[in-house]
Amino acid sequence: MSNSTVATPVKISNQRLYQSLMDLAKIGATPKGGNCRLALTELDGQGRDLVSSWMREAGMTVSVDQVGNIFGRRAGLNNALPPIMTGSHIDTQPTGGKFDGCFGVLAGLEVVRTLNDHDIQTQAPIEVAIWTNEEGTRFTPVMMGSGAFIGKFAIEDILNTVDKDGLRVGDELKSIGYDGSDPVGQRDVGAYFEAHIEQGPILEHEQKTIGVVTGSLGLRWYDVTVVGMEMHAGPTPMGIRQDALYAASFIMQDVVQNALEHAPHGRGTVGSANVFPSSRNVIPGKVTFTVDIRHESAQALQDMHERFKATCEKVAAKHHVSVDIKEVSHFPPTPFNPEMVQAVRQAAQQGGHSHMDIVTGAGHDAVYMASVAPTAMIFVPCKDGVSHNEIEDATPEDLGAGAQVLLDAMLVCAKPVAED
Amino acid sequence: MSNSTVATPVKISNQRLYQSLMDLAKIGATPKGGNCRLALTELDGQGRDLVSSWMREAGMTVSVDQVGNIFGRRAGLNNALPPIMTGSHIDTQPTGGKFDGCFGVLAGLEVVRTLNDHDIQTQAPIEVAIWTNEEGTRFTPVMMGSGAFIGKFAIEDILNTVDKDGLRVGDELKSIGYDGSDPVGQRDVGAYFEAHIEQGPILEHEQKTIGVVTGSLGLRWYDVTVVGMEMHAGPTPMGIRQDALYAASFIMQDVVQNALEHAPHGRGTVGSANVFPSSRNVIPGKVTFTVDIRHESAQALQDMHERFKATCEKVAAKHHVSVDIKEVSHFPPTPFNPEMVQAVRQAAQQGGHSHMDIVTGAGHDAVYMASVAPTAMIFVPCKDGVSHNEIEDATPEDLGAGAQVLLDAMLVCAKPVAED
Repeated sequence: MSNSTVATPVKISNQRLYQSLMDLAKIGATPKGGNCRLALTELDGQGRDLVSSWMREAGMTVSVDQVGNIFGRRAGLNNALPPIMTGSHIDTQPTGGKFDGCFGVLAGLEVVRTLNDHDIQTQAPIEVAIWTNEEGTRFTPVMMGSGAFIGKFAIEDILNTVDKDGLRVGDELKSIGYDGSDPVGQRDVGAYFEAHIEQGPILEHEQKTIGVVTGSLGLRWYDVTVVGMEMHAGPTPMGIRQDALYAASFIMQDVVQNALEHAPHGRGTVGSANVFPSSRNVIPGKVTFTVDIRHESAQALQDMHERFKATCEKVAAKHHVSVDIKEVSHFPPTPFNPEMVQAVRQAAQQGGHSHMDIVTGAGHDAVYMASVAPTAMIFVPCKDGVSHNEIEDATPEDLGAGAQVLLDAMLVCAKPVAED
Repeated sequence: MSNSTVATPVKISNQRLYQSLMDLAKIGATPKGGNCRLALTELDGQGRDLVSSWMREAGMTVSVDQVGNIFGRRAGLNNALPPIMTGSHIDTQPTGGKFDGCFGVLAGLEVVRTLNDHDIQTQAPIEVAIWTNEEGTRFTPVMMGSGAFIGKFAIEDILNTVDKDGLRVGDELKSIGYDGSDPVGQRDVGAYFEAHIEQGPILEHEQKTIGVVTGSLGLRWYDVTVVGMEMHAGPTPMGIRQDALYAASFIMQDVVQNALEHAPHGRGTVGSANVFPSSRNVIPGKVTFTVDIRHESAQALQDMHERFKATCEKVAAKHHVSVDIKEVSHFPPTPFNPEMVQAVRQAAQQGGHSHMDIVTGAGHDAVYMASVAPTAMIFVPCKDGVSHNEIEDATPEDLGAGAQVLLDAMLVCAKPVAED
């Protein structure tokens, strides 16, 4: 064994990665080609069993913590070093796809398999994480496992969380055999990388293979209630109406215009709206709707927040309605670690992949991990930007390119040593 | 008996009219002070029995036609003349008030009682109609009885109409004893007057006691469907979105602005809207909403229709969405008979009541009757413009003024003759 560093390219196998994705997708396959493996169901248990068995076959030791997070560990030459970690999740939406989450986990496995193929050891150990309940569909909140890992949630609270049928996370973990005993978090992580499909259309639109994710958009969520006066649509003259929907429409429009004026990283969405009493010939007396604003810059997000509030006040005064705003979520923007981001960018460049910097608008386990470890993410295109949908799709080539960049970026941190 | 015409004022009794309204309101009284007497229920039967008994006590003959319309008839000196008719309905909304409809019927009864008090006979007979199912809450369509009377609906269709529990109009008429044998309509009506609460805020706002109703607004109803593209609110940049709600908001606003620009008789209302998939962090892929436009002029209503269509087309092109419009109702404007309207105006003037011309934006039995007889309506203010609500209210003085104008206008047509 020589201790020379690795000079020749170490290539992952697109085909093996894609085949593993397809094999995992057989568990909870849906008629329309998607996946339904809700967190901590029997199917999630089967998925965990399958991926854990692959980890063991690849020579990794598998451990499970108290909230069911799974860590497959490939020992390093110096196991006192904190691990270089990658991962994602394998739970899905009710009508989810085959790639969201699973790609990040199996790309990590492919990294290990490839290192094994080439008999490469690393100074630092490498870990592949499967985080519990990222989707948050069955149990709230989303990103439960990674959130617990970084100390955002108390373990007892997590274990006592119930689904709509009253079933506890703790009991469901036990019933699928993933009620681990390892402490949750409380250990150092040398670096964290996560590969993921983009879940948006930018890479496809810009014809780039790799998205170098520089951070995540900050997000503020609001519930808005506009109250006017419910009256007959026929006898009530226009001039004296207090039409809650007409008033609300100006706020709704400004949510979008606010984001447009904070391009390119501003987002503004009214996703849900309800009109009362919802009768064809009654002027709406009340409208409730949601507002979702996002930006990568904390200052810009604050500016958007101020403008949104000011718009609500102006509309209330002008249209003689009351406008009540309740903020229901606030996540500040999370810039990723510049060195890790640069490692990803460089890996893409050296691999000859077209690439661009991008910001994630969706939440990911990496966003939590960024608070405890130098973190970066790698995006690959998904067809038409569609995810959380059974028709979610990505090509073996793009997925392979993402896994290759993951490998190369991780090796920068894990310090590879070729065996003879 | 002298045949001289009546010169001295003949005054109705505010107190007697109001007491009758309160007595009728005891049947189906609701906890919040309103009324629930849905068409053809047992309570509607009790209300019909009570008012019919009052008609008989006032010397009228009571007949019922095949769809349950009740006619109380006070004979004239020349019964070959077509009757001078008034009336309205006594069925209510589920949480209705004490005045909508009932006022028109009991004002008619008060006219007859007052003529009796003063021993006044008329050349033409006088009839007070109680129309079946004006509200349309239990059985569709609205204004069922008057519509059948003018030949708008086939009798068999009406009798076979079922409520949500599958109960037939024909059977329900029978069970309350109002399955009459008289033919429906098919006879001349000399004139038709209807007194009604305004169901809007104009009279109160303008501080007028009497609304001289010159006609009814024409109305067009549409169902609109806007289809864009459902995508994630986070990862999808603003520039490539096809946000169905954002697009729809421009159409919704123009419905109101279209009406504002056709003042004072234009109306535009989006009463109901539904957003799909209605998730906080998903860009709406589809929005459905209703549109209600009204105007007193057929030409202006057509102009509003054209502009609405053009706006939908413009929005579809600009926002890359599809906009589908389905017209679900179209009632042309109905101007009332100028001579009858003038009779009402003159009666208000001579009685010293403040008054103004007004157009009805709501549907009434009078709108159907206008197609077969010279017709006019009399409005009185209702508190805050509120109706179809348990808190619906009107003062005894205003109601009395309306009944007085009704009496005076009817006498112009019925040609009174004082008895000694």
